[in-house]
Amino acid sequence: MTTTTSNRYALAIDLGGTKVEAALVDPNGAIFPPSRFRAPTGRASSSDQLAESVRTVIRKSTAALPDDAELLGAGIGSAGPISLSRGEVSPLNLPAWRDFGLRAVVEEELPGLSVSLRGDGNCIALAEHWIGAAQGVKFFMGMVVSTGVGGGLILDDRLIDGPTGNGGHFGHVEVGGEDTVCGCGGTGCVEAVASGPKTVEWAQAHGWTGTTGEELAAHYADGNEIAVQAVRRSARAVGHAIASATALVDLELVAIGGGFSHVSADYIALVAEAITDRAAFPFITKVRVVASALSHDGPLIGAAALVHHPERLSEAARA
Amino acid sequence: MTTTTSNRYALAIDLGGTKVEAALVDPNGAIFPPSRFRAPTGRASSSDQLAESVRTVIRKSTAALPDDAELLGAGIGSAGPISLSRGEVSPLNLPAWRDFGLRAVVEEELPGLSVSLRGDGNCIALAEHWIGAAQGVKFFMGMVVSTGVGGGLILDDRLIDGPTGNGGHFGHVEVGGEDTVCGCGGTGCVEAVASGPKTVEWAQAHGWTGTTGEELAAHYADGNEIAVQAVRRSARAVGHAIASATALVDLELVAIGGGFSHVSADYIALVAEAITDRAAFPFITKVRVVASALSHDGPLIGAAALVHHPERLSEAARA
Repeated sequence: MTTTTSNRYALAIDLGGTKVEAALVDPNGAIFPPSRFRAPTGRASSSDQLAESVRTVIRKSTAALPDDAELLGAGIGSAGPISLSRGEVSPLNLPAWRDFGLRAVVEEELPGLSVSLRGDGNCIALAEHWIGAAQGVKFFMGMVVSTGVGGGLILDDRLIDGPTGNGGHFGHVEVGGEDTVCGCGGTGCVEAVASGPKTVEWAQAHGWTGTTGEELAAHYADGNEIAVQAVRRSARAVGHAIASATALVDLELVAIGGGFSHVSADYIALVAEAITDRAAFPFITKVRVVASALSHDGPLIGAAALVHHPERLSEAARA
Repeated sequence: MTTTTSNRYALAIDLGGTKVEAALVDPNGAIFPPSRFRAPTGRASSSDQLAESVRTVIRKSTAALPDDAELLGAGIGSAGPISLSRGEVSPLNLPAWRDFGLRAVVEEELPGLSVSLRGDGNCIALAEHWIGAAQGVKFFMGMVVSTGVGGGLILDDRLIDGPTGNGGHFGHVEVGGEDTVCGCGGTGCVEAVASGPKTVEWAQAHGWTGTTGEELAAHYADGNEIAVQAVRRSARAVGHAIASATALVDLELVAIGGGFSHVSADYIALVAEAITDRAAFPFITKVRVVASALSHDGPLIGAAALVHHPERLSEAARA
């Protein structure tokens, strides 16, 4: 069997609150379409059902490996929190799994192969840095504004996964001027202020009669005053939290994805405005904010980066 | 001339708002006492006076180099902001220096030697990591609560100086529930809420009749209600900002120094309490908070670490 560089694949696995997805990804970050499979997860699933969904997509994806290709290893991007050292996951939206040994399940399916696990926010950052909006940028945050707010940090070209693997939990940075309570127990977390559902809730509490993020987007476009205020409030919180993050780690670039970041055509611009409104230091206002270049494929591509680019992981985690 | 490992010295320079200090520091982080000199700086100084003070302490310190010893290079820890790439400093409390080429002044005094510049908060973090409270800790923040609030981050054993050299500006992380305006132009920066002078101001605005941090400390010890509230407010803000930083970069340990951190015997404990009050995630509440082990020698020792431990600096900055 001969393999060329381009047919050495990573098996990428993306575990989220509604589905688990797997695919083979080549060394250029391209997903091999015939190998892409998904299976349901969801709040109501038992632990066995979740594990079976994971096994199913692994088997289907690996069965699609071409005859002349090599499988290098597997990378998992999982909804968090996670435990890096134990290979365990506790996805907030999958109550059946608390401290569940996901890495071991994948290892059993792939004897002899190395399996690497990170949070999905970290994978998104790795993906943007690899083939997306942050190529060649040394100090970078990738983030999403969606049902939650999350992210991942790459500093000096290295993923800041951290000792527990939970680095990049941008959603739980505190912002001022807000008293919204967060699911984590804190008050004023950027996730509790700025996420899609929380922004809809805020608009409703202020008299808006819609029910979905899509409606909010339409009403924002129509100039509905409460919708405009609600979207600006979300962008303001995200911008303030980015300013705090930039004060701490001197970010050069932030790429924002996630469904709710498309709520308005000017959402990214509103975030950028909120940063300059908040801060005067040039080393803070210099941070550029752009839209994610990878949309919903980020977590899967980033999971593959765990295999194709282990040099991007922290030395602690590689050792 | 023969040199042993222990007589290979770094010249360490610490530039602050009231003085500049220089000393020779050996490879174990020990300051060589006969080489320690200081000269005044201050708000009122002209640019020439400041430069002359720097040159004076450099000449005195290097003149104290023992005959059989070798000078490896110089490290500068400066009040910020700074510009790493240009070797310039703009210390907030030294108005005569804006984008001033401090590194070039030091290089002129020490022909042929390498000169490295970082912010003083970064130097404090390097010092604690080298010989202080954070030895062997991979994800760490060193910080001070004093006339300002500042710090430095070491992540995966590497200083996060950042592309501009301003990483670790912890003082400008935003905290909730506060509307105090900061010198930087922002609102609710932890520095604007928690620093010594700002805490005294807050107490005065709430009817306290004292004027100094020392009096506040005495009144806190006596159980004066406003003094107690003021100190707790400072500790709460610091704890909340540490929780935000830990959400972002998964810190294991924070070491707090600076004059105002001694305002009460339980200040560090109050900060730790504020973290667990704010956050429920185990990966946030796991962060340990301790007192600095180096007191006021941190910046000088950390400036020496720039010379003795360049492997702790980011790859970007070493390249």
